[in-house]
Amino acid sequence: MSDTPKRRAAGRLAITPSLAPRDLDRPRSPAMAWQARLITLFPEAFPGILGLSLTGRALKDGLWGLETIDLRPFGIGKHRNVDDTPAGGGAGMVLRADVLDRAIDAAQRGVPTDRAAWPLVYLSPRGRPFTQSMARDWSCAKGVTLLCGRFEGVDQRVLDHYAIEEVSLGDFVLTGGELAAQAMIDATVRLLPNVLGNAASTEEESFSAGLLEHPQYTRPAEWMGQSIPPVLLSGNHAEIERWRQAQSEAITRARRPDLWAAWKDGAQD
Amino acid sequence: MSDTPKRRAAGRLAITPSLAPRDLDRPRSPAMAWQARLITLFPEAFPGILGLSLTGRALKDGLWGLETIDLRPFGIGKHRNVDDTPAGGGAGMVLRADVLDRAIDAAQRGVPTDRAAWPLVYLSPRGRPFTQSMARDWSCAKGVTLLCGRFEGVDQRVLDHYAIEEVSLGDFVLTGGELAAQAMIDATVRLLPNVLGNAASTEEESFSAGLLEHPQYTRPAEWMGQSIPPVLLSGNHAEIERWRQAQSEAITRARRPDLWAAWKDGAQD
Repeated sequence: MSDTPKRRAAGRLAITPSLAPRDLDRPRSPAMAWQARLITLFPEAFPGILGLSLTGRALKDGLWGLETIDLRPFGIGKHRNVDDTPAGGGAGMVLRADVLDRAIDAAQRGVPTDRAAWPLVYLSPRGRPFTQSMARDWSCAKGVTLLCGRFEGVDQRVLDHYAIEEVSLGDFVLTGGELAAQAMIDATVRLLPNVLGNAASTEEESFSAGLLEHPQYTRPAEWMGQSIPPVLLSGNHAEIERWRQAQSEAITRARRPDLWAAWKDGAQD
Repeated sequence: MSDTPKRRAAGRLAITPSLAPRDLDRPRSPAMAWQARLITLFPEAFPGILGLSLTGRALKDGLWGLETIDLRPFGIGKHRNVDDTPAGGGAGMVLRADVLDRAIDAAQRGVPTDRAAWPLVYLSPRGRPFTQSMARDWSCAKGVTLLCGRFEGVDQRVLDHYAIEEVSLGDFVLTGGELAAQAMIDATVRLLPNVLGNAASTEEESFSAGLLEHPQYTRPAEWMGQSIPPVLLSGNHAEIERWRQAQSEAITRARRPDLWAAWKDGAQD
């Protein structure tokens, strides 16, 4: 790193000393915006869908930043090999520790060492399942570094040495971590200040209160012989609220006994 | 539909009557390859990452097909409006029933009415959580139609009328269904015949036997003072197998008591 920091990419975290306290809950200037760093063999996959719609507008407006670290140049030999066969045999290939380490060191330059302030994550079905509450935690951090695997996985020693947290998008297997990374970034970025046009919309949605969302209806009032439930057209806001809450509870109880049990425990505290 | 079916897009399902039984487990000709149809306001988001790497090569080789149905042209009025404010008030916008119905009818043209052979799915955090076993079921179907929402959601009457199954990528909220759709398609497509170079690699991975995967190691044998576990370099395949199984069980028990309980129940049957 140079002693005179200069902006090297749009949204890149510039390290500037400051005595003033930083209010993390307020919109930040681009130079200190929330940032995702991605270690990947497919940098061209980014921003992908994240460059569209609300997340794309927020990226252009500097409300968050994205930086890819291409794993390939860290590879070994003329062919820049990044992987090798699994010790003990088996199908697929494993990303090498002595390639990943230099990519991780490059990605972590200038990053807070406190992992709560900047999680370092490997995307893996063996990890802790990603949830809305993890998205909220990440959105309160300064950024996140995500290691996207391919093939069979990464050498376990790298995960141990760097104390990398394994996080899973869900109980299924993807061809690589890139899609998981994009989904987690999307879930996180939409919680950053000013990214969604209407801040209230994150308060009523699924998981915000531990329940699934109530059904939604809009015009026309009658469609294919089905009417909008009359209470929603009553104008009685207290009754509408009661109906929606009852619907949320009924749907959660029917579809997700696990969430329902957790919500009931919490509601009784 | 014309009486003389003709191919309208690469990978598009051509409807040809045949008395011969079709072997669904064998590689199929492009005309009958597994197909994803996506109803979306962002058709430009596809194929996205699915166009890269193994899924991308398989797409080019016609092992699967992708068709987007742009929701916008089905919108109402000069501005092709697709959404309106929620009945009963609240933040965000709701996709209209009288717009979605025509898009769904267009997407379902020529599709088997048996939902096991061709699932019709709305991507929603209120849905049944997507799992590896659902990916396997979808990969045995002829294709899938995925409705990608945006905003607050879709009019409930559409979901009821078409008996659309709600499926969730996980317990978090995304700005839209497109990333969820890509992740589910990726998980499904890699299970299709001949998509992965080495078929064995889907047999040893997480969830294939109800357990998380054992750790992986590769060269160099020593890295940062850490050695590969000696058993993996022993050449004794039975011992390697025992070690890996024990590691899988230990990791699953420690990280995912829910999967561990389900696996133990199954193993005792």
